[in-house]
Amino acid sequence: MKGIVASILLGGAAMAALPLSAQLTWGSKDIHYPKNFQVAKNIVTDTVIPAWRGERVGALALIQVPKGEKVEVKAQLKGKLKGTASFVDYVLTDDFRQCGTHPTDLPAWEAPDIIDNVAKSVTLDGETRPIWVTIEVPRNAKPGKYTETLEVNGQKITLNVEVSAMTLPKPEDQSFYLNLWQQPYSVSRYGKVKPWSKEHFELLKPYAEMLYRAGQRTISAILFFEPWGEQSNDLFEPMVETVKKKDGSWSYDYTVFDKWVEFMDKNGVNGDIECYSMIPWEMKFRYFDEASGEYKFVQTTTKTAEYRDLWGSFLKAFASHLKKKGWFDRTLIAMDERGLEDMMNAYAIIQEADPNFKVMLAGNYHPELTDKLYSYTIDLGKSFPAGELEARKAKGQVTCLYTCCSRPDPNIFSNSAPADATWLPVYCTAVGYDGYLHWSFMNWTDDPMKDSRFKLFAPGDTYFIYPEGRSSVRYERMVEGIELSEKVKALQEKLLKAGDVKGYQKLDAALNPIRIGYSTKNAVSTAKQVNYLEKVVAELSK
Amino acid sequence: MKGIVASILLGGAAMAALPLSAQLTWGSKDIHYPKNFQVAKNIVTDTVIPAWRGERVGALALIQVPKGEKVEVKAQLKGKLKGTASFVDYVLTDDFRQCGTHPTDLPAWEAPDIIDNVAKSVTLDGETRPIWVTIEVPRNAKPGKYTETLEVNGQKITLNVEVSAMTLPKPEDQSFYLNLWQQPYSVSRYGKVKPWSKEHFELLKPYAEMLYRAGQRTISAILFFEPWGEQSNDLFEPMVETVKKKDGSWSYDYTVFDKWVEFMDKNGVNGDIECYSMIPWEMKFRYFDEASGEYKFVQTTTKTAEYRDLWGSFLKAFASHLKKKGWFDRTLIAMDERGLEDMMNAYAIIQEADPNFKVMLAGNYHPELTDKLYSYTIDLGKSFPAGELEARKAKGQVTCLYTCCSRPDPNIFSNSAPADATWLPVYCTAVGYDGYLHWSFMNWTDDPMKDSRFKLFAPGDTYFIYPEGRSSVRYERMVEGIELSEKVKALQEKLLKAGDVKGYQKLDAALNPIRIGYSTKNAVSTAKQVNYLEKVVAELSK
Repeated sequence: MKGIVASILLGGAAMAALPLSAQLTWGSKDIHYPKNFQVAKNIVTDTVIPAWRGERVGALALIQVPKGEKVEVKAQLKGKLKGTASFVDYVLTDDFRQCGTHPTDLPAWEAPDIIDNVAKSVTLDGETRPIWVTIEVPRNAKPGKYTETLEVNGQKITLNVEVSAMTLPKPEDQSFYLNLWQQPYSVSRYGKVKPWSKEHFELLKPYAEMLYRAGQRTISAILFFEPWGEQSNDLFEPMVETVKKKDGSWSYDYTVFDKWVEFMDKNGVNGDIECYSMIPWEMKFRYFDEASGEYKFVQTTTKTAEYRDLWGSFLKAFASHLKKKGWFDRTLIAMDERGLEDMMNAYAIIQEADPNFKVMLAGNYHPELTDKLYSYTIDLGKSFPAGELEARKAKGQVTCLYTCCSRPDPNIFSNSAPADATWLPVYCTAVGYDGYLHWSFMNWTDDPMKDSRFKLFAPGDTYFIYPEGRSSVRYERMVEGIELSEKVKALQEKLLKAGDVKGYQKLDAALNPIRIGYSTKNAVSTAKQVNYLEKVVAELSK
Repeated sequence: MKGIVASILLGGAAMAALPLSAQLTWGSKDIHYPKNFQVAKNIVTDTVIPAWRGERVGALALIQVPKGEKVEVKAQLKGKLKGTASFVDYVLTDDFRQCGTHPTDLPAWEAPDIIDNVAKSVTLDGETRPIWVTIEVPRNAKPGKYTETLEVNGQKITLNVEVSAMTLPKPEDQSFYLNLWQQPYSVSRYGKVKPWSKEHFELLKPYAEMLYRAGQRTISAILFFEPWGEQSNDLFEPMVETVKKKDGSWSYDYTVFDKWVEFMDKNGVNGDIECYSMIPWEMKFRYFDEASGEYKFVQTTTKTAEYRDLWGSFLKAFASHLKKKGWFDRTLIAMDERGLEDMMNAYAIIQEADPNFKVMLAGNYHPELTDKLYSYTIDLGKSFPAGELEARKAKGQVTCLYTCCSRPDPNIFSNSAPADATWLPVYCTAVGYDGYLHWSFMNWTDDPMKDSRFKLFAPGDTYFIYPEGRSSVRYERMVEGIELSEKVKALQEKLLKAGDVKGYQKLDAALNPIRIGYSTKNAVSTAKQVNYLEKVVAELSK
């Protein structure tokens, strides 16, 4: 072992030269490269990526240092376009892909998913390590070819970005409705900061920014303690403090709620405010009882007078507060996976409190509910009856698809094919839905940087973004899918307006395998479906 | 029981008046009305059907005569448009919907499927009977509303046909590739006529006409005795007589083959000639042995010299005959559900005999075969890799989907939802395939007018057309689907050329439930999917 270790020069380019036998190559974003992957074959030193102006472009490289040549490596992207190069770190996963208790006897494996934009270098000895390159093509970039260089300890490979004259909408102007639920209490626990302290917001900032960048349309707000029992590692604390005063009347403190919404707004996530939940997993509602000076619970059902009183009072006060803040029209009284009867009971109470309250459900389809729900999200394996999506769209309502533990694939577990995260938004668009919902963007496990397995569900189902503002392959691939969806829509409109029958049909043909792909008995390769669509989109973008 | 029986006046209108309490109404084409269905509620005496010029339009009425009022009824359609009204007869089916041996212990039920265009009247006593109305809208019809009257023993209901200015292509000009395999030997057996006699061709004529009307693109020809073992009730006799002469050389008699192709041609079914099969279910090939004066079999595999000799000789002589007849370019050496190795062996022999022979497979997808097959049909639940359909289309190759016993629904068994037959062609088109294949148009059971159950498969899987030129609900609904598919394509092109973004998107949205519909976990209602699309198509056709 030679033990070549370079000194780290902050911001500098000079690192120890790589051993001559080290291999640097472009790789595939569709592959989970194991650490012992041998890159010696098919070295690619020059690659081309088509892009639109305003696009966030990802590319994956691989560096392998021969065994016995222990060396610290550092990656840098150089060129006219703004870009970063980060090492991809591994997180433990296994092959569990369903709901329920996570088994403990499955062999674990390491998924390269963490895009470590914090680490400045890694030390390798015999292993292969992926490097993730992100480029944000400026919205005013001149169309044409840009040549970027990925440099690893002096060794170089070339990335050509072919920028089309087409421009993506800004994230806030995207038509795609992205709904990734946030879990701020994971961030405070992991960061060991007081919830809603200045430090907490500091830690939350990169996530708000990443959500904004992806085109996030919702803020997740929690009305009462823990709407979902213990299905997340961290319990959800309420953002409204509900107090029963000594005289039996209710009072509400919106301080946290207001801070949270204002914080998200400030970071560009200023769409719908989804408030969970009038119908939690466990039908109990915590409040502070002034008389006893303790927290107490109302354990009830949606049928009781007690429930009607509790929520009638809450919703009236809440409506008044929201109107004062100018947020009423953005606020959704939101429920997750609840049955029809409970939904109808809750709806009646909402209507009585304020008939203009918007209501949201992520759950099963019920014909009785579709008129009542401003926002309705169903499982990706199900569908609305023919014609209903269009009718909802005409009324300005939002209709999306979700995936959770119930679907083995395509999905965004840490063991999912990387292309699945790209496929999902495109699928939603291609079959006529407004967007995609996932219940857990950052519901971290105890040690989210090391182990994505949780006591429940498929590993990584509960989060796909990492501590300290680290991105992930899954996040980047999802952004790619949302951008691809926007491109498809923009091109469809362009080709239609131009009466370009051939071009339109070509694009449509490329969408068909995605529309039917997940359901066929063939081994589904979302990568093939997505890559073909991207190829066609690039051709039509010239 | 009053026993009112009217005299049948041929071609005349005067029948015994219906009892006052008899009910005549328009019904739904999507429902299998049982004989004891009570029509008393929701009587519809006036209905509207949108149509294009050149369209074959179907409608379903119901007549119920009260119990104790036994009466012979006769139905007639009157109006400016050419139309017929036929009683729908029942055939036995059950709820078996899979492959393999048909169980004998399932309760049978009667499916109203036979459109009895032979019977002039039926005698009813308490039962409900569907009446099927067929109208062929002339291609030169003036657009506008036509009022037709369905008259049953003097009682009348009204059918308004709203003819659009849009015109369907003629069946032979349709882009849809319909491939329903024919079984002429069922017809000779059932009709008790000598195969290929003048009488046999007389009996075959209505089926050739019905195939033509639907847009059939293929003639099924049989090269050697029984390509499919005993999976049909009638064995398939060869259409080429292969003789081993005393000197060991082969000779071939094409008399039957020529007659069959010429007959189908004459009736408008003049597309591809699919010749089965170089790789039959049982690998034995019958020939007449001149030396012994007996039929003998070559039992072999695709790997042997014997096989190569047999087929090398056959195919060279066949190619020469086909060229003489001017049919070579229309002829496909066709295989059904055979494995890759056998296909590759057979292909090499075909290539050697004549490299210009077209080859066809209905079976699994193999990447190794796609370049080699002019015509490739796979199961509807599977799909070609992204981009391959378009590449095949660009080369002028044909790519279709089939259903057989392996798919519970949608399908065209006698127990399938009637709308399934409409859905299938539309699905094939909507996901980019050229057409649809079914292996059995008329492989009749022993008593096809009474019992659609066979020793194998789902009932009715083996045929969906009835003896003596009788049509069926399944056939008519499939024609409706092919026409709907043609309408969609014509409208897509029209809207694209006009740059009508809104119209195009509306049509596309109506296709999406069909594209994803069969695969969702919802109870699939093909009727809802099809009816919604038809509604949108009618709106866009105005």
